[in-house]
Amino acid sequence: MKVAPKQKFHTHVGIIDHKKVIGKPFGTAIKTNKGKIIFALEPTIYDYVMKSQRSTQIVYPKDLGYIAARIGLQSGHKIVEIGTGSGSFTTFLASLVKPKGHVYTYDVDENFMAIARKNIEKAGVSKYVTMTKLDLKTSKKMPQKDADVVIVDLGDPWVVVPQARKMLKGSGAFVAICPTMNQLEKLAAALRKNDFFDIECTEQIVRTIEARDGKTRHSFRAIGHTTYVAFARKVITPPSLRKILSPIVEQPEVESEEVDSAEDESLSSLKK
Amino acid sequence: MKVAPKQKFHTHVGIIDHKKVIGKPFGTAIKTNKGKIIFALEPTIYDYVMKSQRSTQIVYPKDLGYIAARIGLQSGHKIVEIGTGSGSFTTFLASLVKPKGHVYTYDVDENFMAIARKNIEKAGVSKYVTMTKLDLKTSKKMPQKDADVVIVDLGDPWVVVPQARKMLKGSGAFVAICPTMNQLEKLAAALRKNDFFDIECTEQIVRTIEARDGKTRHSFRAIGHTTYVAFARKVITPPSLRKILSPIVEQPEVESEEVDSAEDESLSSLKK
Amino acid sequence: MKVAPKQKFHTHVGIIDHKKVIGKPFGTAIKTNKGKIIFALEPTIYDYVMKSQRSTQIVYPKDLGYIAARIGLQSGHKIVEIGTGSGSFTTFLASLVKPKGHVYTYDVDENFMAIARKNIEKAGVSKYVTMTKLDLKTSKKMPQKDADVVIVDLGDPWVVVPQARKMLKGSGAFVAICPTMNQLEKLAAALRKNDFFDIECTEQIVRTIEARDGKTRHSFRAIGHTTYVAFARKVITPPSLRKILSPIVEQPEVESEEVDSAEDESLSSLKK
Amino acid sequence: MKVAPKQKFHTHVGIIDHKKVIGKPFGTAIKTNKGKIIFALEPTIYDYVMKSQRSTQIVYPKDLGYIAARIGLQSGHKIVEIGTGSGSFTTFLASLVKPKGHVYTYDVDENFMAIARKNIEKAGVSKYVTMTKLDLKTSKKMPQKDADVVIVDLGDPWVVVPQARKMLKGSGAFVAICPTMNQLEKLAAALRKNDFFDIECTEQIVRTIEARDGKTRHSFRAIGHTTYVAFARKVITPPSLRKILSPIVEQPEVESEEVDSAEDESLSSLKK
Repeated sequence: MKVAPKQKFHTHVGIIDHKKVIGKPFGTAIKTNKGKIIFALEPTIYDYVMKSQRSTQIVYPKDLGYIAARIGLQSGHKIVEIGTGSGSFTTFLASLVKPKGHVYTYDVDENFMAIARKNIEKAGVSKYVTMTKLDLKTSKKMPQKDADVVIVDLGDPWVVVPQARKMLKGSGAFVAICPTMNQLEKLAAALRKNDFFDIECTEQIVRTIEARDGKTRHSFRAIGHTTYVAFARKVITPPSLRKILSPIVEQPEVESEEVDSAEDESLSSLKK
Repeated sequence: MKVAPKQKFHTHVGIIDHKKVIGKPFGTAIKTNKGKIIFALEPTIYDYVMKSQRSTQIVYPKDLGYIAARIGLQSGHKIVEIGTGSGSFTTFLASLVKPKGHVYTYDVDENFMAIARKNIEKAGVSKYVTMTKLDLKTSKKMPQKDADVVIVDLGDPWVVVPQARKMLKGSGAFVAICPTMNQLEKLAAALRKNDFFDIECTEQIVRTIEARDGKTRHSFRAIGHTTYVAFARKVITPPSLRKILSPIVEQPEVESEEVDSAEDESLSSLKK
Repeated sequence: MKVAPKQKFHTHVGIIDHKKVIGKPFGTAIKTNKGKIIFALEPTIYDYVMKSQRSTQIVYPKDLGYIAARIGLQSGHKIVEIGTGSGSFTTFLASLVKPKGHVYTYDVDENFMAIARKNIEKAGVSKYVTMTKLDLKTSKKMPQKDADVVIVDLGDPWVVVPQARKMLKGSGAFVAICPTMNQLEKLAAALRKNDFFDIECTEQIVRTIEARDGKTRHSFRAIGHTTYVAFARKVITPPSLRKILSPIVEQPEVESEEVDSAEDESLSSLKK
Repeated sequence: MKVAPKQKFHTHVGIIDHKKVIGKPFGTAIKTNKGKIIFALEPTIYDYVMKSQRSTQIVYPKDLGYIAARIGLQSGHKIVEIGTGSGSFTTFLASLVKPKGHVYTYDVDENFMAIARKNIEKAGVSKYVTMTKLDLKTSKKMPQKDADVVIVDLGDPWVVVPQARKMLKGSGAFVAICPTMNQLEKLAAALRKNDFFDIECTEQIVRTIEARDGKTRHSFRAIGHTTYVAFARKVITPPSLRKILSPIVEQPEVESEEVDSAEDESLSSLKK
């Protein structure tokens, strides 16, 4: 929302005059007419993502964050996104790859694209996003190449694996959002077939803890499932070597983060 | 590692000549003298973090990623890090806030700092990091102000809450890494006392799934605990309003990500 | 509920005549006057626990079940329960230890006890339960001895550790329900001090999966935290040996279930 | 192991003479010749399950316990088990349904059955178990009827759903152990088709917590996946009513344990 001197902001805890807020630093506590407190916080990308207008199920920060860390996202990266959806993932990525990186995002539904465009503009990152209506499932010519990352958010992500491969640079990262296990299974097979490596399927869980003096415990309320995530890297294996690799590729090692073994040993030495 | 025409690379699956790799695109499969395959992948920030030399327990990508998403990290942000540790968090942050943002990191242990410096240089982000030996627990004058984010990785993070507050901009984000519940409890109390809001304590869990044709299931091996994370935002509450707030501040709302209710409803309408 | 020929059962999906149900086998589908289906299921102990009248927070089946399995509960066991609460734990235990075993349960709040008595009677296991009003925190003489298991559901379970010890047989099992981490911490210290061994603190999580053709995934809704559980076994360590043990006792090994290593190896041999 | 006056027990922490143990109460600490402590604990069913000789992957106590609680297992129940495996589930069930209940267990592999028989005997519950070599997939006549519970531990549990139905009493409980999601999916479809209700698929997770003074946290080591569990109850729906039910049966409600709402509300009233 934009503040204007003569306006009022109505909330379920009361009304505040915009003029009470103007000139105040971010973070200031404002008293409503009902005697309740509202904080004037500067919106973050987290806030934009969580409050985005939703045409489809959004990707949640717990998943966005893990993906960014897992692919080793860097400012400056060139990203291709197949399936713009509500634009929440686009917004998140653009805010991190800017100012030299860019997100090229493709969708086929003009209604979704209109909503996504609004969400991206609101978050102030539209300069770093190019949105195009294009069906990459059927497109003959790929609109991008040498992408650092290709992100797929479609119901049938396995269909565009060859296209993603063409747009990726060598050893670039492929990521897909898969709400069901069945999608993961079909996608992993397509990735193995299309010469991808280091295939990892995960789900991300965030549990909140109520840290109160002498009464610390996990929260009674919890979030359930949002989505699974598939990750892989493009490799280039000559046919002669694929033969050697094939039993491996069929059973890819699932990379898991290992706890620092030094720490672990010091710990177990303390034990019986 | 740097490749040199006359060198060989020895691994547990055999030896490869560097010259076999030179000139090849990233991702290329190379056959070792034992007939095994090695892929020449371009290292990502994830790889640098996971392979960093460790003076202390590192912060894992699952935690790094959630923190980045939760605080709404953006390229261009000014970050203060209290406790450089092995520099893995520093590296991750610098790779995202570059080229206009910066990470100012403080530690007191010169041995840790030397290791961190090497890790940060290896990852190619030292230009965006300023490392200073300074004990912020006792320092009278704060070396930074108007930081977008202050990140604390100390055994007693609650001690530097007032210092973090001074360095943060209004509504800026505070984050601390807390391996134990006891640290969370003390820290949350200090944050409430020092006029922070939206206090959230979490743990992040990543589970890997083995997606294989007709045999998809979670992995038998799992990672356990690495750390808990505390998050808060600096607010400015005049003493008169703190009184109103106090019963609230004592029982801060634990923000939890809510599943898109539209989706949820369409789901439950499918049910009985 | 008891069925009677002339009565009707009113529900939010409509009304059914009791006479429609009488004489039908359990499991029969009955049509309500609104054309909806109701199944006449025989209530199980799970149903009694979940539908029990609650004076206090109940212990959930996910926790009850793990406890039963962890202590190696057997039919015939003699159980002492300190803190009857709503009687849901009592009911669960009695249904398993009957007909030769028995649950002796103690509480100090007569209102709670009245509710618990009703819940236990409804479930049909009152014959195997002896409920006594007695404050075991202050009681000089222990009302039981040679118990297979002592279960504590109090806000301050560490207070009754010596009493539990006196009532337990050698190597008998101690279990306590602890909603907070702080309780676990104090209790574990008391257990170490009072010559208990194999101390294990856990939390139990059950996630539901929606198994639907081609759309299988975890549920969007999830349960959060209910309680932590502490487990230990009574041992007898002469003072001369406690000295040897003490560094161990300070850092008790947390027993974790290990996946069958044979299975695990066969699995990893399939991998790269 | 049986103790004998002249024997010694060799362990990795030293040797103890059996005669040191004879006559001592369970729980007694014994010093080995290396000065280490060994506790003489009475084995529980948990110990028998965890130490059972394994022909196949066993079902773990975390899963056994949840199943017992979910089906409302009672002493006295009549259980049919299809797939004896290593007999660990058989042992667990027999120890709880005894002395009046019974476990009828069926397998086709004589080698597995021999191992299972030993495990069941060792645990002292063979009196309450009848083990039969019989292939229930092809058997025309069912060997049991009116079972309270049918438990299936086969690679293709959906095949025996009609057989299980015939052996169950009205509203009796069906349970199957499914290591993969694909099994869950096929099984759930078969259960819906065969007039089962209250279908629930779950996974059980137990996390251990290290409760140490001022340093309480989750364990660094964790167990991953062992198995998923499917649960359902037999109902009797006349064809005329199945039509009404069918859209429901296709999307069965996944019953999830709900936190006591009273508690929950009192909690949220404390929050902002």
